[in-house]
Amino acid sequence: MVMLMKVDLNSDLGESFGRYKLGMDEEVMKYVTSANVACGWHAGDPLVMRKTVKLAKENNVEVGAHPGYPDLIGFGRRYMKITREEARNYILYQIGALYAFVKAEGLTLQHVKPHGALYNALVKDEELARGVLEGIADFDKKLIFVGLSLSKPLEIAEEMGLRVAHEVFADRAYNPDGTLVPRSREGAVIHDKELIAERVISMVKDGGVKAINGEWVELKADTICVHGDNPKALEITAYIRKRLEEEGVKIVPMRKVI
Amino acid sequence: MVMLMKVDLNSDLGESFGRYKLGMDEEVMKYVTSANVACGWHAGDPLVMRKTVKLAKENNVEVGAHPGYPDLIGFGRRYMKITREEARNYILYQIGALYAFVKAEGLTLQHVKPHGALYNALVKDEELARGVLEGIADFDKKLIFVGLSLSKPLEIAEEMGLRVAHEVFADRAYNPDGTLVPRSREGAVIHDKELIAERVISMVKDGGVKAINGEWVELKADTICVHGDNPKALEITAYIRKRLEEEGVKIVPMRKVI
Amino acid sequence: MVMLMKVDLNSDLGESFGRYKLGMDEEVMKYVTSANVACGWHAGDPLVMRKTVKLAKENNVEVGAHPGYPDLIGFGRRYMKITREEARNYILYQIGALYAFVKAEGLTLQHVKPHGALYNALVKDEELARGVLEGIADFDKKLIFVGLSLSKPLEIAEEMGLRVAHEVFADRAYNPDGTLVPRSREGAVIHDKELIAERVISMVKDGGVKAINGEWVELKADTICVHGDNPKALEITAYIRKRLEEEGVKIVPMRKVI
Amino acid sequence: MVMLMKVDLNSDLGESFGRYKLGMDEEVMKYVTSANVACGWHAGDPLVMRKTVKLAKENNVEVGAHPGYPDLIGFGRRYMKITREEARNYILYQIGALYAFVKAEGLTLQHVKPHGALYNALVKDEELARGVLEGIADFDKKLIFVGLSLSKPLEIAEEMGLRVAHEVFADRAYNPDGTLVPRSREGAVIHDKELIAERVISMVKDGGVKAINGEWVELKADTICVHGDNPKALEITAYIRKRLEEEGVKIVPMRKVI
Repeated sequence: MVMLMKVDLNSDLGESFGRYKLGMDEEVMKYVTSANVACGWHAGDPLVMRKTVKLAKENNVEVGAHPGYPDLIGFGRRYMKITREEARNYILYQIGALYAFVKAEGLTLQHVKPHGALYNALVKDEELARGVLEGIADFDKKLIFVGLSLSKPLEIAEEMGLRVAHEVFADRAYNPDGTLVPRSREGAVIHDKELIAERVISMVKDGGVKAINGEWVELKADTICVHGDNPKALEITAYIRKRLEEEGVKIVPMRKVI
Repeated sequence: MVMLMKVDLNSDLGESFGRYKLGMDEEVMKYVTSANVACGWHAGDPLVMRKTVKLAKENNVEVGAHPGYPDLIGFGRRYMKITREEARNYILYQIGALYAFVKAEGLTLQHVKPHGALYNALVKDEELARGVLEGIADFDKKLIFVGLSLSKPLEIAEEMGLRVAHEVFADRAYNPDGTLVPRSREGAVIHDKELIAERVISMVKDGGVKAINGEWVELKADTICVHGDNPKALEITAYIRKRLEEEGVKIVPMRKVI
Repeated sequence: MVMLMKVDLNSDLGESFGRYKLGMDEEVMKYVTSANVACGWHAGDPLVMRKTVKLAKENNVEVGAHPGYPDLIGFGRRYMKITREEARNYILYQIGALYAFVKAEGLTLQHVKPHGALYNALVKDEELARGVLEGIADFDKKLIFVGLSLSKPLEIAEEMGLRVAHEVFADRAYNPDGTLVPRSREGAVIHDKELIAERVISMVKDGGVKAINGEWVELKADTICVHGDNPKALEITAYIRKRLEEEGVKIVPMRKVI
Repeated sequence: MVMLMKVDLNSDLGESFGRYKLGMDEEVMKYVTSANVACGWHAGDPLVMRKTVKLAKENNVEVGAHPGYPDLIGFGRRYMKITREEARNYILYQIGALYAFVKAEGLTLQHVKPHGALYNALVKDEELARGVLEGIADFDKKLIFVGLSLSKPLEIAEEMGLRVAHEVFADRAYNPDGTLVPRSREGAVIHDKELIAERVISMVKDGGVKAINGEWVELKADTICVHGDNPKALEITAYIRKRLEEEGVKIVPMRKVI
């Protein structure tokens, strides 16, 4: 019997703003199957959103919303103490805004992946997680919620009737409890292409990877977060894809994985 | 033969922001049939949008998007030179954002009415008008575009296949060419309740009203813009409604007028 | 021997924004001796700042900067995790912005009082406090830093060579450790005029007040925070002033207290 | 008799924002004598402002404020209809904000050059020009106002007692009336290094240059606007400086030119 392995590659895209350009979106679109598109709060603007959704369409990439804190100056990377009700409606607003572009281009919105500090805050704060998930469910229960692999918010999402995708990070070290090693710590980000590829293959095929202390961490890999903000990142992304395919793993949008 | 006359009463609502409160939304909702809800660019925020859409639902009032310039500090009342492409995508973004709340509350989005300086700029700038209308059409051709009665943008909208509602202003003086007398000029705003009611009845029943210079201006009145930002405005709105009903005019949402 | 007692009354002013009005600034200016003027980040805009500084001048009220988090939508009342370097430069930016209006009106900037969530965060986070204090010192070491009475940041400020004013709150309950009882808890805000006046007199004359649990809290009262956002608050402020003066306490700007 | 010729080279700097980087500030600082530093409204943020002022200090470059419209999404390049009073206080706010960083670094603020669409709007709108100039004068009459060479606002500024610097553009074609050929027209921007250098030398030494139609335009060149947003622009800037020096023109800050 042959078990067919599948995984999605997702990337944060559409992060330019006005005259400011960020990311090699045209290039990275060639390698990923799902695009997380910024919704104008921490990055992105209506013209960038339109362009990014078009680009996804041209590359046959599925589109998801990438909502964040209202913090353009901090790129959504700083924790803000918001209430459950604020989270719910902030998320709803941003999903709707992106949905308009997706609809205009004749596509379907596939998923929602919170951005940056909000993504991380969710894991530790159930009340916040519920707010975000209610915002998603308010819009459409068929949307896929993308969260940190095996984390609590994914459980809550499933209880609420949402579909979920467990996300793993290609270039990040893990703590033994499945959380990411903070960027500020030594060894948090892995730069070696070969090592990254091996870890990703381990996550997908063996259901886990070695944590920073050497212990084994169990992980579920529905989708792998990859980057394209610089030529090096792009090269790694291309390499991950190539190596996964060589291993017989099919790269498909997350809606075909879960 | 009895001709049934119908007209819609619309009001700009949901203009509060964060801790800042504006308007007597709870009260004015009782008198209008269509609510133009601010989308967070010139006024409004996600919590205010949610609350306003809920309030409309409770009062059986139809909801429309009220998109404006990205100018919170100026309340969208200052002209900004934006391109057709910018207009298109700014409108699309704001429609989508409001749509999310409408969808969450199980309603349907009825119309789009540009706000303030954008509303006025449209009338004189065909390129800008086309941008705004493309934004609306991109989202949904069944949306009703609300514009200055008998103005060019309404024609263009119809050519594009959009539905339209001709709007008249209850308390504003008109120039002989059908444009509004700018607020800065003497006599631009009418304060007398009785006079306002008579003018509104004339617009609806006789298809026009006296311009500021005494000439007759032809107008088409599908929807009448009324206010509720202070007790006086609210009183006038209630009185307009009462007088129209006494004249046998049925007050119904614009989708039932056009 | 007669000991002359003096205290400053300060209030947060200039919190309107664009078309949004907040506070009864014209009225409250008659009772206070120091105005904390919002700097456009959590509230206020350049026109409001100009008007507020002018109003202070007319009422012979001293002006201070009231910088906050970059969070207009949350009115600066939500915690944001910012770095020491960000705090330093955010404060510096806002002080400079307000200084321009103070200079234009021929006045001198007296003090800096951080706003809302930033004010509270300072007390618990020494690194953040240092950032804020460095921002103040970068601009002018003669500025008075206003902080929670007897709190750590005031000590640090003095070590850095800044002048300080210990602030007490007229209508707030205290914990036995000198911190404020959070607004969310029962009994956090005191509404009784007479009780407020007695507590304020106790703070000024006896150097402390009863905490929420009945224990005595030592406090230093250089300046008392009062309000003017509604008629009731204004009445309390007027009453506090009257009662203090009856007790022989002179109401003078903080620079004459410390 | 040898007449000593002097001219200033100015460049728009500090235009990064948050995570978004723009411009080769470190490089261009080596060639210019005056830096126009963005103040956070159309570009720049407090950290960028601090860094840019420090960089100017290290390179012995004079610092000026570069205030713009409140339009980050449009980079201050879109016309906005603001009142004289708004202009006055918007400028004052931004000057103050930048001044704080200049003061913190122990420098003196040399000049104010409005940015983008505001710079252009000034030339045609005397009321707007007066607002901007009043904002500058409100802060400090010793500040130098930088405006389009021989344009009306410079006259008004002098009448008001402000110091002025006439600015010419190295790489832009001129209309016969001394205004710039809009970027949208063919030939508006000159790309040839040699031609640019010759034109600049003509402006400085001969007091004028050939307009786009071949006519001679008289110009006064106190300061030349140069760029550093890409390697090509930087190369041109370096070449302009070299050629001017070879012609015996001394490159000094504008305060030493006027």
